[in-house]
Amino acid sequence: MITTMQLPASKSVFKPGEIALIGAGPGDAELLTIKALRFLQQADVVVYDRLVSKDILDLMPVSTRRIYVGKELNRHSVPQDKINETLVNLANQQLKVVRLKGGDSFIFGRGSEELNYLLEHQLSAHVIPGITAASGCTTYAGIPLTHRGVAHSCSFITGHFSKNGELILPWDNYVDAGQTLVFYMGIKSSGVIAEQLIKHGRAATTPAAIIQSGTQKGQRVWRTTLQDLPQLIDSEQVKSPSLLVIGDVVNAVQSGVEPDAKENGAITEIPAYFAAAAALEKTG
Amino acid sequence: MITTMQLPASKSVFKPGEIALIGAGPGDAELLTIKALRFLQQADVVVYDRLVSKDILDLMPVSTRRIYVGKELNRHSVPQDKINETLVNLANQQLKVVRLKGGDSFIFGRGSEELNYLLEHQLSAHVIPGITAASGCTTYAGIPLTHRGVAHSCSFITGHFSKNGELILPWDNYVDAGQTLVFYMGIKSSGVIAEQLIKHGRAATTPAAIIQSGTQKGQRVWRTTLQDLPQLIDSEQVKSPSLLVIGDVVNAVQSGVEPDAKENGAITEIPAYFAAAAALEKTG
Repeated sequence: MITTMQLPASKSVFKPGEIALIGAGPGDAELLTIKALRFLQQADVVVYDRLVSKDILDLMPVSTRRIYVGKELNRHSVPQDKINETLVNLANQQLKVVRLKGGDSFIFGRGSEELNYLLEHQLSAHVIPGITAASGCTTYAGIPLTHRGVAHSCSFITGHFSKNGELILPWDNYVDAGQTLVFYMGIKSSGVIAEQLIKHGRAATTPAAIIQSGTQKGQRVWRTTLQDLPQLIDSEQVKSPSLLVIGDVVNAVQSGVEPDAKENGAITEIPAYFAAAAALEKTG
Repeated sequence: MITTMQLPASKSVFKPGEIALIGAGPGDAELLTIKALRFLQQADVVVYDRLVSKDILDLMPVSTRRIYVGKELNRHSVPQDKINETLVNLANQQLKVVRLKGGDSFIFGRGSEELNYLLEHQLSAHVIPGITAASGCTTYAGIPLTHRGVAHSCSFITGHFSKNGELILPWDNYVDAGQTLVFYMGIKSSGVIAEQLIKHGRAATTPAAIIQSGTQKGQRVWRTTLQDLPQLIDSEQVKSPSLLVIGDVVNAVQSGVEPDAKENGAITEIPAYFAAAAALEKTG
């Protein structure tokens, strides 16, 4: 057990009246960057989203003021313009303000919208990258995003339906078998995603994975095929937050890995420690 | 200044005979995850690549054995099979072995190849994700990978020429203006990349950025257009490691940001702290 750690020299100072836009990563508090943790622990006030895990909030001093903007009591999200105003008001009180989001602020996190608003109001902002869900969740599930000879590129796509219930995407661009597709917020639209990808030429038997609550306690991983994806999501009652991964990389790491052991939560206790290897130790 | 930090509870133990495949992030030591730092500081031996920064190596105790596999004296890389064998041999000596790479092992890092080899040899491996270059370097340059109404997806692509000097990619898939393209190792092939993208329908005036030594001391950022990209790389003598970013996101955060201030290194001293904001403080 390590009780003390030598930390890298800090290169930035968090000044009163500044905002830090921090990506908290996919959930496991150990996946925070050193820099994110440093800023978080200096904050006077933190404005945070629904996807920020309790383990991460617990790293702040109890005295830190917390403002939750994920869901209000009436179940509606706080509108973006209200969040923007809140950040400006807090900074103008000369507080050290952290805006904390799950994953990475600059990948489907609206971080750039908030940053623009802050800069327009002549405020100073730090942006601190986080491990995005596509990276952290797949790693904990034993799925690489690229693999030589299997996938030469990976794409992160939002599977979120628009206001009028449509999912308009350039499906023709997703047919290459050497391209890994990761859909954020794609559980509800999985039927459309599978149908369109197959219709536009992606093999129905393309491996697909679903990662629910990735890197967190209760992580679940299912492996299936593109054509069976919607049915599995339905029958297993897959819940948000979940990530869809489509491509041959889903099965690129197989040797000795036992999907069952992962699904029953073994990998949650020892993240990214491969279940089969642990089993080998026990038996051998 | 913070002298002590409360760290998240550690959920995994690094045992003798195990290997940890660790993504070190793009260079700034503060972008290491807590988990990566924990494992790194427990290692008996670390096998590391050319892209791992000195600041990160300095975080290990001086007693940690270091094996460099980036470039040998004769300027040839250590072949992958030799690296694989080295990891197995070290683990079989009941050492705690860290395999440390720049960025993330599972995104153009060959981590999954090494993992497969280790699992075939019945060894236990931890995989610890890192901030990949596409995320960390763009954030430090003030460029979001997605931006509502501008980019609904981002793709990470290798721009590395194959052995026979070709760059065969599904260019037709990269024409959508709402898709951000990030090319890893694309400096030498930038001429081909620009030519093919324009030929297949991407606007010649599409914004493009080059980020050299991202997040590290000496970071440089250039903003240009797709058609002018190769010439700029040539005239500015852009060096590896550099990342190419293509898409309207390059200019999505503009308010008050002064590219010149970034290019001359201001952002290096205070990463992701926006230069214009700092200038505003100085002037008034």
